[in-house]
Amino acid sequence: MVVAMEPGATEDQVAAVIARLQELKFDVHRSTGATRTVIGAIGDTSAIETEMFEVMPGVAEVVRISVPYKLASRMFKQEDTVVRVGDVAIGGTQLVIMAGPCAVESLDQTRTIAERVAKAGAKVLRGGAFKPRTSPYSFAGLGEQGLEILRSVADEFGLKVVTEAMDRTHIELVEQYGHILQVGARNMQNFSFLRELGKCRMPILLKRGMSATYEEWLMAAEYVISGGNDNVILCERGIRTFETYTRNTMDIAAIPVVKKLSHLPIIADPSQGTGRREKVAPMARAAVAAGADGLIIEVHHDPDRALSDGAQSIWPDQFEVLMAQLRQIVPVLGRTI
Amino acid sequence: MVVAMEPGATEDQVAAVIARLQELKFDVHRSTGATRTVIGAIGDTSAIETEMFEVMPGVAEVVRISVPYKLASRMFKQEDTVVRVGDVAIGGTQLVIMAGPCAVESLDQTRTIAERVAKAGAKVLRGGAFKPRTSPYSFAGLGEQGLEILRSVADEFGLKVVTEAMDRTHIELVEQYGHILQVGARNMQNFSFLRELGKCRMPILLKRGMSATYEEWLMAAEYVISGGNDNVILCERGIRTFETYTRNTMDIAAIPVVKKLSHLPIIADPSQGTGRREKVAPMARAAVAAGADGLIIEVHHDPDRALSDGAQSIWPDQFEVLMAQLRQIVPVLGRTI
Amino acid sequence: MVVAMEPGATEDQVAAVIARLQELKFDVHRSTGATRTVIGAIGDTSAIETEMFEVMPGVAEVVRISVPYKLASRMFKQEDTVVRVGDVAIGGTQLVIMAGPCAVESLDQTRTIAERVAKAGAKVLRGGAFKPRTSPYSFAGLGEQGLEILRSVADEFGLKVVTEAMDRTHIELVEQYGHILQVGARNMQNFSFLRELGKCRMPILLKRGMSATYEEWLMAAEYVISGGNDNVILCERGIRTFETYTRNTMDIAAIPVVKKLSHLPIIADPSQGTGRREKVAPMARAAVAAGADGLIIEVHHDPDRALSDGAQSIWPDQFEVLMAQLRQIVPVLGRTI
Amino acid sequence: MVVAMEPGATEDQVAAVIARLQELKFDVHRSTGATRTVIGAIGDTSAIETEMFEVMPGVAEVVRISVPYKLASRMFKQEDTVVRVGDVAIGGTQLVIMAGPCAVESLDQTRTIAERVAKAGAKVLRGGAFKPRTSPYSFAGLGEQGLEILRSVADEFGLKVVTEAMDRTHIELVEQYGHILQVGARNMQNFSFLRELGKCRMPILLKRGMSATYEEWLMAAEYVISGGNDNVILCERGIRTFETYTRNTMDIAAIPVVKKLSHLPIIADPSQGTGRREKVAPMARAAVAAGADGLIIEVHHDPDRALSDGAQSIWPDQFEVLMAQLRQIVPVLGRTI
Repeated sequence: MVVAMEPGATEDQVAAVIARLQELKFDVHRSTGATRTVIGAIGDTSAIETEMFEVMPGVAEVVRISVPYKLASRMFKQEDTVVRVGDVAIGGTQLVIMAGPCAVESLDQTRTIAERVAKAGAKVLRGGAFKPRTSPYSFAGLGEQGLEILRSVADEFGLKVVTEAMDRTHIELVEQYGHILQVGARNMQNFSFLRELGKCRMPILLKRGMSATYEEWLMAAEYVISGGNDNVILCERGIRTFETYTRNTMDIAAIPVVKKLSHLPIIADPSQGTGRREKVAPMARAAVAAGADGLIIEVHHDPDRALSDGAQSIWPDQFEVLMAQLRQIVPVLGRTI
Repeated sequence: MVVAMEPGATEDQVAAVIARLQELKFDVHRSTGATRTVIGAIGDTSAIETEMFEVMPGVAEVVRISVPYKLASRMFKQEDTVVRVGDVAIGGTQLVIMAGPCAVESLDQTRTIAERVAKAGAKVLRGGAFKPRTSPYSFAGLGEQGLEILRSVADEFGLKVVTEAMDRTHIELVEQYGHILQVGARNMQNFSFLRELGKCRMPILLKRGMSATYEEWLMAAEYVISGGNDNVILCERGIRTFETYTRNTMDIAAIPVVKKLSHLPIIADPSQGTGRREKVAPMARAAVAAGADGLIIEVHHDPDRALSDGAQSIWPDQFEVLMAQLRQIVPVLGRTI
Repeated sequence: MVVAMEPGATEDQVAAVIARLQELKFDVHRSTGATRTVIGAIGDTSAIETEMFEVMPGVAEVVRISVPYKLASRMFKQEDTVVRVGDVAIGGTQLVIMAGPCAVESLDQTRTIAERVAKAGAKVLRGGAFKPRTSPYSFAGLGEQGLEILRSVADEFGLKVVTEAMDRTHIELVEQYGHILQVGARNMQNFSFLRELGKCRMPILLKRGMSATYEEWLMAAEYVISGGNDNVILCERGIRTFETYTRNTMDIAAIPVVKKLSHLPIIADPSQGTGRREKVAPMARAAVAAGADGLIIEVHHDPDRALSDGAQSIWPDQFEVLMAQLRQIVPVLGRTI
Repeated sequence: MVVAMEPGATEDQVAAVIARLQELKFDVHRSTGATRTVIGAIGDTSAIETEMFEVMPGVAEVVRISVPYKLASRMFKQEDTVVRVGDVAIGGTQLVIMAGPCAVESLDQTRTIAERVAKAGAKVLRGGAFKPRTSPYSFAGLGEQGLEILRSVADEFGLKVVTEAMDRTHIELVEQYGHILQVGARNMQNFSFLRELGKCRMPILLKRGMSATYEEWLMAAEYVISGGNDNVILCERGIRTFETYTRNTMDIAAIPVVKKLSHLPIIADPSQGTGRREKVAPMARAAVAAGADGLIIEVHHDPDRALSDGAQSIWPDQFEVLMAQLRQIVPVLGRTI
């Protein structure tokens, strides 16, 4: 951490900063220049609030040099993390496609969709049994019954299951029926929940919060990893911007940036990311071209009657066309599908 | 809801939209203009996703005329809601000041601060026993012990207690020791938690999410009210913008706007809202001048050594000066303090 | 335009809205429902401010059904606009690559770079002679001398020239030396300048403003087209978001969305869009995979010593690798390069 | 400037950074810690791009310690700048109110409004003769005729004139008829224009760009001051956020923050800042309570028929009530009105 004093800072002000740093057990290096004094603090700053120093008299600026996440950082672990779920490996050379309905509505619906996406090359079946809804009056999912359907259908077609848990009371059920536990964007900074997930033994799909920075996202992953669960998959699902035409604005650059900052695999969700059916395929292609390790896509055989998010679900036929396009693109990245 | 068709929309496309609306039990009014057809749907659209219609062929735009919240709206209830906690009334003519440390650290610390803020005119003691922290390595609060301290000190100085619960496992404890349960910004869309709070019998202080729109904020209040708990106090605590000099950007206009849209009382948090001690007083004055029903302010007798958010805590002396300024401003609003 | 009255609106309030609409020469349709009255206004609303009606007593909401741009809209012109500059066609089946230094620094520098990008397949040479700089103390470009260098080098290697004009005093010079006139992001709503460009006879490359919506961007294009110049190429160059790791956040979804809303060609600028050299190639691939008609890329043979934006300029070797990757991707889009 | 190397940076990488800094004439201080090397560079970094160093191999982070603006900074000039226009002093103890119509529409309209605002205590008459409009089809102002009206009316009622120039061709006219030249938000980074204004001899009212940071805003002021014109008044007029209910989100905290960073006076525009008539008074009170040096307010005697921005113009009666409220608030700030 570097504390830059103002040009006119007094010797007493400098001494107060140094004293405070020493009280916090930092190694202090003072550099007195022609116009200003700069103080370097060596030690673990990850639990320090830089604002505490910013408001001290005579301080011009405080900069934390090291990032506050450790276990999630590329610096801590050089090689890519590959999350394995049976024979599916996320973060390796194979592009992993997760697909299925937004919400599990019935056995028939789930079977119809799962059969098509499995045939087209998906490896993981997605589907919500617990649905976070902005309105208390909206369909909130089938609960355990939905999980049962999801698992039995997945098993039938040789797929793994990814599904959302909304709070700690859902964890046990998702562990029982699923393979990957999804954390929704609105829960990315639900710290109590993240701590519970650290104790969980299944891979976590951690969606980016809708206005989260990369650092906050990786700090959320740090919560899970520091709790003892290394198997975190990040998922870019669009951020909020001024533009309201699309539901969210996909930050495709997050993919190569986060792969540099962290060793964790990262996938993209072009369905939530755009909110519009006809934009799903272009953004899926873009995410893969930028280096995503996988995709999670909402597919519905009758999206106009979907109980949730029908507008962003693509038809099984569209999914097949997209898969064919992705097969053409992945060799550029040195990947298979 | 109004569905505007594109100028070149075919009769079949129009018929499909009408059929879909009727299937959802709407009363449909068709208006065929010179260049385009506009379809009005009368009925309860609060659980409808407008996106579902936006992607239908031939549709140009879909507009939900009514707001999706009902019980939280001014339309539903004309007169102001006044939340009463003993002899303290939030949303009435008196400006209610809540003050205290960011986190409860010890009995001594809490007593020292509570005595000063009570003497200066605060009616409610704030203080966190469960602290949401972006880093898993930061101080996370004293838990139940903190609640005990908070309540005993509040009782000593004739104050009420407002304190945060982070998840459902904290509710019972907060009910036992506190008077107002605070929901943090990061939990504003934790829908499972909001449902639990609807069953709770104590007033809820609902902080605005850091990138939430007014509609989303009021929908969060709707979750609580629709669950059976009418006593919701809204709290503007700053939103995220591009500017990083301040921790958040206080949206002071939220105060008069939300008071028009909703009957719920609204207070402001200039400590979280700015993140900087010397900006707390100007923003507190601004919030009151714009019509806030109250303020929640972090005060610390030794902020440089605060275990959490010291940089945004003001000194007891500064709090007294601010209270004197507010006493001069409130008559303009027809209020007392 | 649709004006929805509040449920309790009086007959006088409804009459006032209708009278105001008729005064503005609209055809008015009134629809009186069980709970509220909705008024439809048929006519040209492009010069109307909806806010004017929003503040009238009894009005709940006002919605402009039609978009305010006309000549730039897909509705006005169904087929894609192809902008031709000699034998280069932007918006056709060929992906057009524009490349070169951020700023023209010298003849040698420009020649060295132009030779490499031409050889690798670029068709247009980019380079700034007038540079908008946030600091008044930064290098602001070589002016006319820069334009001379740019054109002579472009001619030598069979390239066209795209270069920025910052205000009306530059237009004549850019017309003399260039083929495409670039409007920078900060000038996207410089309305005086846009009016002048409408009178100009050369194609305009219109960069998106850093916080502009799609509608504002297309309204800027509308200014140019309504002034008489149809040859507008849109350029997505990243928007401002909370994330500061990248200079801007590229909104890749803008590409398929704007292609649907408008007939104008759209290209992407991954250099400005990311501000970081190692992110240029992934984002260039993403933009092409999402359907961009072209790219504009900063290339420098000695970026560490570039006088402007060296950090986001790629090496000629990197440009060659990228071109090879793009050649593999474009067949998916039915394009050549 | 501080360049922090990555923990594993090689000696060659460190040497390369130092060599580059020395090439740029910086004084270099090296500090080799247990885990990483930090390099301090002393000298004028205002024209340096930190990104240039960020992409060098082995570099973890680069931080510019000093702000890039000089002449606009409080560090350069400790005492407040007071801009004087005849007997009106902006930035002194008197709160200065500027009021008038959004656009000058006619002599009658301007006279009617000016008489009322002068009587209520305004010192400066506002009114646009050149109007930046998002649509090329909207009313764009009366031009020179508007300026003539504005000045003759202002003289009649003893007011000064503030009015907008949109580009360099308007400067001479505004100098002829006005007292303060207004730069609109969309022109805040029109660098050619700012350079011209530096040569101008009249005070400049510089509106904040709609997504500008404080630093960018002060850099725009730096352009004007470094060109030779010290008389810059800053104006907060709202920034763009996700919330669309209000036209913009007023950043009231900008007032105390900018007053700390800079010596320039700062006023607020609650009309543009909210876009809604009934929110103008609360936000005007808030801005004054937070320490603004003045206000600029749109007033219209028949806002429903205003040719521009009628929805955000208040009635003369409302203006009088507001002035009475402000007279009650200003003593808290040690001001008069």
